[in-house]
Formats: sequence, C-alpha cells, structure tokens
Amino acid sequence: MALYVMKFGGSSVGDTERMQRVARRVAEKQDEGHQVIVVVSAMGDTTDDLIDQAKLLSPEPPTREMDMLMTTGEQISIALLSIAIHQLGKKAISFTGWQAGFRTEAVHGKARIIDIRPSRVLEAIKEGNIVVVAGFQGMTEDGEITTFGRGGSDTTAVALAAATSADVCEIYTDVDGIYSTDPRIVKNARKLNEISYDEMLELANLGAAVLHPRAVEYAKHNQVRLVVRSSFNHNEGTVVKEDAHMEQGVVVSGIAYDKNVARISIVGVEHVPGVLAKVFGSLAESKIDVDIIVQSGDQEDKADFSFTVALSDREKALKVIEGLSEEVPFREVTSEDGLVKVSIVGAGMVSHPGVAAQMFDVISKQGVNIEMVSTSEIKVSCVIAGGKLNEVVQALHTAYGLDTDNQAFVGGPKDRR
Amino acid sequence: MALYVMKFGGSSVGDTERMQRVARRVAEKQDEGHQVIVVVSAMGDTTDDLIDQAKLLSPEPPTREMDMLMTTGEQISIALLSIAIHQLGKKAISFTGWQAGFRTEAVHGKARIIDIRPSRVLEAIKEGNIVVVAGFQGMTEDGEITTFGRGGSDTTAVALAAATSADVCEIYTDVDGIYSTDPRIVKNARKLNEISYDEMLELANLGAAVLHPRAVEYAKHNQVRLVVRSSFNHNEGTVVKEDAHMEQGVVVSGIAYDKNVARISIVGVEHVPGVLAKVFGSLAESKIDVDIIVQSGDQEDKADFSFTVALSDREKALKVIEGLSEEVPFREVTSEDGLVKVSIVGAGMVSHPGVAAQMFDVISKQGVNIEMVSTSEIKVSCVIAGGKLNEVVQALHTAYGLDTDNQAFVGGPKDRR
Repeated sequence: MALYVMKFGGSSVGDTERMQRVARRVAEKQDEGHQVIVVVSAMGDTTDDLIDQAKLLSPEPPTREMDMLMTTGEQISIALLSIAIHQLGKKAISFTGWQAGFRTEAVHGKARIIDIRPSRVLEAIKEGNIVVVAGFQGMTEDGEITTFGRGGSDTTAVALAAATSADVCEIYTDVDGIYSTDPRIVKNARKLNEISYDEMLELANLGAAVLHPRAVEYAKHNQVRLVVRSSFNHNEGTVVKEDAHMEQGVVVSGIAYDKNVARISIVGVEHVPGVLAKVFGSLAESKIDVDIIVQSGDQEDKADFSFTVALSDREKALKVIEGLSEEVPFREVTSEDGLVKVSIVGAGMVSHPGVAAQMFDVISKQGVNIEMVSTSEIKVSCVIAGGKLNEVVQALHTAYGLDTDNQAFVGGPKDRR
Repeated sequence: MALYVMKFGGSSVGDTERMQRVARRVAEKQDEGHQVIVVVSAMGDTTDDLIDQAKLLSPEPPTREMDMLMTTGEQISIALLSIAIHQLGKKAISFTGWQAGFRTEAVHGKARIIDIRPSRVLEAIKEGNIVVVAGFQGMTEDGEITTFGRGGSDTTAVALAAATSADVCEIYTDVDGIYSTDPRIVKNARKLNEISYDEMLELANLGAAVLHPRAVEYAKHNQVRLVVRSSFNHNEGTVVKEDAHMEQGVVVSGIAYDKNVARISIVGVEHVPGVLAKVFGSLAESKIDVDIIVQSGDQEDKADFSFTVALSDREKALKVIEGLSEEVPFREVTSEDGLVKVSIVGAGMVSHPGVAAQMFDVISKQGVNIEMVSTSEIKVSCVIAGGKLNEVVQALHTAYGLDTDNQAFVGGPKDRR
C-alpha cells in the first residue's frame, strides 16, 4: 500500500464526463490497494470566466477580492469530484485549501506557502476516504483567503505530498509526459522517460508549461518523486527525480522556449554605488520577477541596463523604474516586446564544452540575431526576435540529436493551473 | 450615524448592472453618514445551476458536498459586489460566512446558528469599510462548511444585525414590501406600512415568500427592527416590529397560501402509550417539519392520524413511518398531494370572535371542501384541494375588507434565498 497524491488540472475536469473519468481513475487507484489524495484545479474556463466578470466591474479589481472570487473555482471542482466519487460507491471528502491546512504569507494573488498542517487530510485518509483537495489556495494566519498564482495547483499537490510523506505525486495532464520540446512545434519531439529535478526546473522556468517551476522546486527540496502523465491514457509518463538515468551520449535533454518576455532597458544610468541594488530591490518589492540582466555600454560614468520580465509585469515594472528617477538618475527607460527566449537544457552539458557555441551557431545559421544570453551549469538561454521561433527550435532539436522517428501527437501542453 | 444591515437577494444581484446598482445603493447609505454591512445571496440562478451540475453526477449527492458546492455562489457574489463598491471609490471588504463568525450546529443543508463572533466584521466597519457578508452559510466548530437552507440569507442578515446591535435590518427584494396577499393572485392587494413580528411570522410560515420565518423569529427574539423594501425604487416599504400600529377596524391583516403541502395519513394505529411521541419524535430526528396534525376516527383502540409536511419531505416522511411499523403497529400509511393551505392572519382576531366561522363560510361558498383546520391566536389555516385556490384567496381578501382601489403591480415575490 502506498500513499498517492494525484493532481488533475482544469481541462481534465472540464465537464461532467471528464469529472467522472477522473473519479473512476482515482477509484481505480484505491482499488489497487493504495491511499489517495486528489488535488484539482478549477473546471476548464471557470477561472477565466470569473476574471472576466470581475473586469466588467473594475479594470483593476483589488487582489484580495480576486482571491475571494477565484478560489470558488476550485471549491466547485472539489465538491463535484467528491460527489462523482461517492456515486461510484467510494467514500470521499473534499477540503478547501484552508481546511487542508495550507497556511500562506499575507500576499494576495501570489502567496507562498509558509506551513501545511494536514491533520484533517490524514485523519480522513485513515478513515478510508479518498480526499479531494482544492488546489491553488490557502489561508493566512489572520484567516484571509489567498491564492498561489498560476501553476498553484501543482504546488498544492507537491507540497501536500511532502507534508503527508506521500510515496508518489502524480501530475495528470493532457500530454503523455515531459517532451524534449513542444510537440506542437517539433513533430518528432521525444517523450522523456526520466528527467532530473534540476533539468525539469530549468525547463519549467523556461516556459515548458507542463509543470510549474515552484512545484518542481518544492519537489526537489523535499525529494518528492514526481510523475507527469496523461489523464487520457495509462501510458507511463515521465518520472522526475534526483538522479535521472542519462541516456548514452545525450548532452541536451530538452529545448524550451518562452514567449512571455518583455525587455526593459534603462539607458544612461549614473554610476552611483548601490544603483543596481536599488532598481532590482524595488522590482522585487513589487513582486516582479526579473529574469536575464545585462549591463552594457559603460561610457563616462554612465551605464545601460537591460533586463527581461514577464509581459504581464511590463507596465508595472516601467512604473516602478519611473518612480525611481529621483534616486537613480537615468536618461530614459524603454521597453520592447515581440521577443522570445529559447533555451537548451541538459545535465550532460557540464562535462561537454562547446555546447553553447554550437547553439549560437545554429541560431545564426537561421539568420537570427541573438539579443541577450544567459547561462547556468545545465542550460543556455538566448533572447531572440520572435519571428523565426519555430525554425530555431526545430533546428536546435535536430542539431542536438533529439529527433525521433515517432511523430509526437499534436496538441501540447495546455493544462497549466 | 446608524449601523445598517442591508440584505439583497439573488435577483437583486443577478447581473453586472444590478450588482452595480446595489453597489451605488449601499454607497449612498454610507454617504448619508451611516455604517453599512451588506448581506448578499448567490447571483440569480447560480444556486440552481450548481444543483443541476451536482445532479448530473449523482441523483442524491451527499449534503456535506452540496454545502461545499453551494456556498461558492454567495462567495462569488460578495467578491464581485465588493469589487463594484471599490470601483465607486469606497472601501469595501468581503467575508464568507465563517470569516464573519457564523458558527452553526453540525448539520448540512439546514444548519442552525449556534453563535456569531463578528469581531472581524466590527473591526472592518471601524476602519471605514462597507462590509460585504455571504448569506446562507456558516461553519461548525470542526471547521466544516454548512448552509442554513432556503431563506438562509435573510437569517444571516437578521442574525448579524442582532450580533452587531445594528439599528435597522433592511431586506431588499423585488416587491415594495409586505402585501395583504400575493399580488399575482389578487390585483388589488394592499401594501402594509407596518406589521407585527407575530403576524409576519404567521405570514412567513404560511408561504408568503418575502421573508423567511426563521429570520422573523430571530428578529422577534432579538427585537431587530426589520424593513422590507424594494431594491428597484426608494419607496418606504413595510416595517416589521413588535407593536405595529393597527389600522382602525382591521381584523385580518393578510391572506397567505402555501402550495408546498403534502398530507400523510397513518390509518389504524393501535392505542399504545407514547405512540404520538414516537412518530413525531422520529420525524423531528429526521429534520422533517410537521405542520398541521389531526387525529380522527377513534374506534376499538385504533386511531387514524393525518399530518402535513413540505412536499419535498414527503418521501422521507413515508420512509420514516414505514421504518416504525414494528414499534408502532398500524394498518397502512398513505400520502396525498395537490393540496394547498390557505390562511388568514391578524393580530386583531383575538378580540373579534367569529372570524374563523366567516372564513369557513367564504370557502364553502366557493364550493370547496375544507380538509384540515388549524388555528392560533392570530391565524386560521384551512387545507383545501388546490383547484380553486385563486378564487378562494380573492374571496377572502374581499370578505375581510382588504381590497384597495390601487392595483398592486403584478410580479410578486421571487427573491427568496
């Protein structure tokens, strides 16, 4: 007997029939002799519909009230899934985030988990229930309802798996597992059988939408064994764990891309000590994640900085920078979209020099300029103009020997929250 | 400065425009210098839609999960209304039932309030917020989400008014106030300016759908001044209070009817001590409300009983009785629908004998048989076949001098929850 956490995203529970399929899948797991905790997202477009309703009333609704609003989506899912499981003759009980014991920091829309007290979940499991937990949500110490932001249900699943010492955390989605790249772009992308946390973390951070980076981080930190698999079939999926088995000769495991990129440039910044700390400290305070940072053009005590943020943070970031114009004198601040970030990821890179050079070569052979570069031990990222994205990804996939004979199914990752 | 509790039903917040109208109405009250707590129901058909979704998955979904499901309706309303109020430049904050401090007994679908701890509500009021509270819901001591059943949002409003020592509790609905009878049936029904708790309680219990009886009871017990008025205009409405001013010569204040009636008859019950206690005790344990009870036909140690219950409780009541056949021997149990209960209500009745006799006379002149009768100090109820309901109500309205020259608008009470 093992304890499983099974997470199903919004498209897996999008309508009554799918809800019933998830119920059967979960019941099946219990019939195999296991204990089961299910984490679900809001059904299909529910979250977007709720956001639309709020936007009809206010262009900038308060985040506290948005959390109040959006958490109903998951609450509807857990109640309905629990009802569907009951109908199969199984004991089931649903818990909201706060009932399942998720305590978060006092931030709305993007709260981090501080603590999980899963006593009610464990008790219900002991009583033979299939426990259905609302993803994406928690509560502050003051009893305020909070959400984790996009991808939050993955985090709920992994965190709950860690807190309950579950044996496996299965992330069910609408693809068969983690692919060497987006099968919508590269027809002969290959499904990976295993991948390490670090590689997955890079891929997740780089826009491979199957697993949320925060969830992977949580899994790595707590050594939670993750399996990404399809809710539509019983194929084996991809195992994410510490020491993934590396295939012979494979240097690069996957190619990722991210269209959600805006570049912000601060031109003619005076060289005063603490300038960088001031700028990026203020951005961090405003909860804006900065990705690649490049300093260039150092002339006569002035420097230029460029950095990338998510498209949705662009306006907010510009406002923050403009608000600093007295403390941090600069000539102008500009922003740019239409860019993409393309990355190669692979634990094998460490022992293979020349991987980055090969990447630059492949990109330039597509007639594309590289705007920014960023590297880590196991990845190289290039920001380029978005126009030839598909060709670049396909060329990199081929160049690093990732093409298979089998055509991956077309469709690709959608099940994000 | 006074503290107002303002309650808006589902049809008052049925869409974005209506939501905005409620927001303006509430903001207006604050602009007049008052403190405001708003209680709202789920939007329009939300509750019914959620029930439909559950029924697609199970014919008899567990009540705990139904509470989990249905409470999302009010949570959506409070978030959206709060957003709409913010948009008017006012401070607003929403609270679910449990956040507002509603503690209930551990029963699902029909829980009673045990205690209200409104500290968060009062604190938010003190900080200048318009506080928006979800009607119809609370939490048990064990952190289980519960609902109060139909009409529960009225109860939330009145209970919160009592717990916060509010000056007035205004129930906004889609009619102008309490009418002498249903304006859909009697065109010249009159709007009452005042009515006593006791009269209102009888009317509410008898199916006048504007105010829920439990809410009136709560108001009477805590002497909460109630005003029932329209959310579509600024007319004065009907004041419900202890000593309502009685109009000269008015004996009967209103005529009510209730179509939600089933009669159950237990035939040939053996005369054993404690039989009645056994039967009605078991029904009470199953949370079935019994209304009129009549004992008849006492022959050779055997008696027949008839009683009425809500139509929706009919099957459940029959099951309970059948389950008692060993302890309480009887010949057979039968049930009947298609009945209605018509009632006359008036505090003036006490000092005017012959009111009941006049009622029987009016009904029989319509060629209708009276099946059951029940009386209290201030009301007389008759159960009759439903076929001639409208004629009977009109005839009674005329007979007791309630007709006005003004035609009441057609539409009538819908805003029930």
